[in-house]
Amino acid sequence: MKKKLGESRVAIVGLGLMGGSLAAALNKREACGEVWGVARRQETIDEALQRGFIDQGTCNLARGVKGADVVVLATPVRTIIELIHKLGPLLPSGCLLMDVGSTKREIVEAMEVLPPHVQPLGGHPMCGKETSGLAAAEVDLYEGAMFAITPLSRTSQEASDLAREIVKAVGAQPLVLEAERHDRLVAAISHLPYMVSLSLMMTTEEVAAEDSLVWKLAASGFRDTSRLAVSDVVMMLDVLATNREAVNDILARFRDQLDELEKVLESEEEGRLSRLMEAARRRRKGMFR
Amino acid sequence: MKKKLGESRVAIVGLGLMGGSLAAALNKREACGEVWGVARRQETIDEALQRGFIDQGTCNLARGVKGADVVVLATPVRTIIELIHKLGPLLPSGCLLMDVGSTKREIVEAMEVLPPHVQPLGGHPMCGKETSGLAAAEVDLYEGAMFAITPLSRTSQEASDLAREIVKAVGAQPLVLEAERHDRLVAAISHLPYMVSLSLMMTTEEVAAEDSLVWKLAASGFRDTSRLAVSDVVMMLDVLATNREAVNDILARFRDQLDELEKVLESEEEGRLSRLMEAARRRRKGMFR
Repeated sequence: MKKKLGESRVAIVGLGLMGGSLAAALNKREACGEVWGVARRQETIDEALQRGFIDQGTCNLARGVKGADVVVLATPVRTIIELIHKLGPLLPSGCLLMDVGSTKREIVEAMEVLPPHVQPLGGHPMCGKETSGLAAAEVDLYEGAMFAITPLSRTSQEASDLAREIVKAVGAQPLVLEAERHDRLVAAISHLPYMVSLSLMMTTEEVAAEDSLVWKLAASGFRDTSRLAVSDVVMMLDVLATNREAVNDILARFRDQLDELEKVLESEEEGRLSRLMEAARRRRKGMFR
Repeated sequence: MKKKLGESRVAIVGLGLMGGSLAAALNKREACGEVWGVARRQETIDEALQRGFIDQGTCNLARGVKGADVVVLATPVRTIIELIHKLGPLLPSGCLLMDVGSTKREIVEAMEVLPPHVQPLGGHPMCGKETSGLAAAEVDLYEGAMFAITPLSRTSQEASDLAREIVKAVGAQPLVLEAERHDRLVAAISHLPYMVSLSLMMTTEEVAAEDSLVWKLAASGFRDTSRLAVSDVVMMLDVLATNREAVNDILARFRDQLDELEKVLESEEEGRLSRLMEAARRRRKGMFR
């Protein structure tokens, strides 16, 4: 019979912002038997041990996952995919392999070809910060966040239930989402905002080349709109590379809306412009209470 | 001889977020002799009196500015322009008439035709919040902000100095900017971010019409990028209407940058994409310390 979460050993591969915070939440809340951490650098392990985020740590992937009941991959998406291929033969029988990667389709595809003794499940917590790395990790990062989970048809109910238990243990709310649908929706709510912040920085940089005073005038509105441009570059490159189609589609839609807005501006039909602005304002006011 | 700020009566017309916060800062810091408030509704006056933001208040414009040494217009831009035309004959001789409107060219044009006994000066504090109205006003709103000032060729040194004194008294930093240049720069740093937030909301609304789950997945990245869509509609309509050319120009530039980004994405030249992302990241990290 399968162990309960409280008796399980959870190994987290990648101790950056997401992995470090997950380890911290599980360990500080005493949600599982043991938390192991796997990182590339020994200094990361040492810091995670010192902050009490993990019970044991290693730079050796095989040693880190040996004897684990749950393995969580918390690296950029394309590294997750590589890790899935590597881990297949290394994982104990019945082990739940989940991830916290930002896109799901390509990850779930890689999970499909895992050996049958592994229980795979895709995951994506809808939280984060613009800062990255273990130094930015915090025990409450997941608190109150939606946590998308993508079970495969091969995933057992037991494994699925264990994943939900982990999600709830760190304070998040599980939401089952099929991989394609997940990737389409996060393209709108997450990848488009990143692209928009990036373009905003590029545009302002161009203006600054003519008049550098522009930076001096930037206040809280610009600060917030451009914040996502600080996102980790490797992480975002992987996101864009593994969600090309949905990102292209949402960019096209955004462009259409911008065109529409520009046309309304030019037409000087203030009633119409005002209605567009009012509708967006009302919707946005109702969010994030 | 001209009075010092400490002995001056300052009348603020419009007690919303900006006017209310200005009144609060001047009055609580005892920067001037008296602070008067002019508002459309008696309830606003009552609230401003009760919170100790003003010493006297009235809904009657002529009565409010009678005997004022300084009059500050703190309403949406097109109302400021109307008020300038109305106030000409009502203002005491030597009175400094300034404003805190979001665009400067059309306001300064209106100020040019004021009767010669008035000392006009354009102003625009680079601070604010997405909430509006007196309820959102706060004594420290201006603290640390850049405050663009646009003296006219007719503005005396004395009036200009008094305006600087007011700016510093509320904790802000004066920055002399010619009106055209101001409007061009704020189009990039403020009006474009608004348009981008608005288009982001419109795009997500379109996606939501097909799959309403999208709202549930929105987290802090979307929250910040879309925050400006909550801006006061009347205020922003006036901004867009009085800065058409610069807004159109900056939208065209933004579109070019977005096109560029899309082309790089499609080309799958990751090195180039990565360099664009890294440059924006580095620039943005150096801001807002």
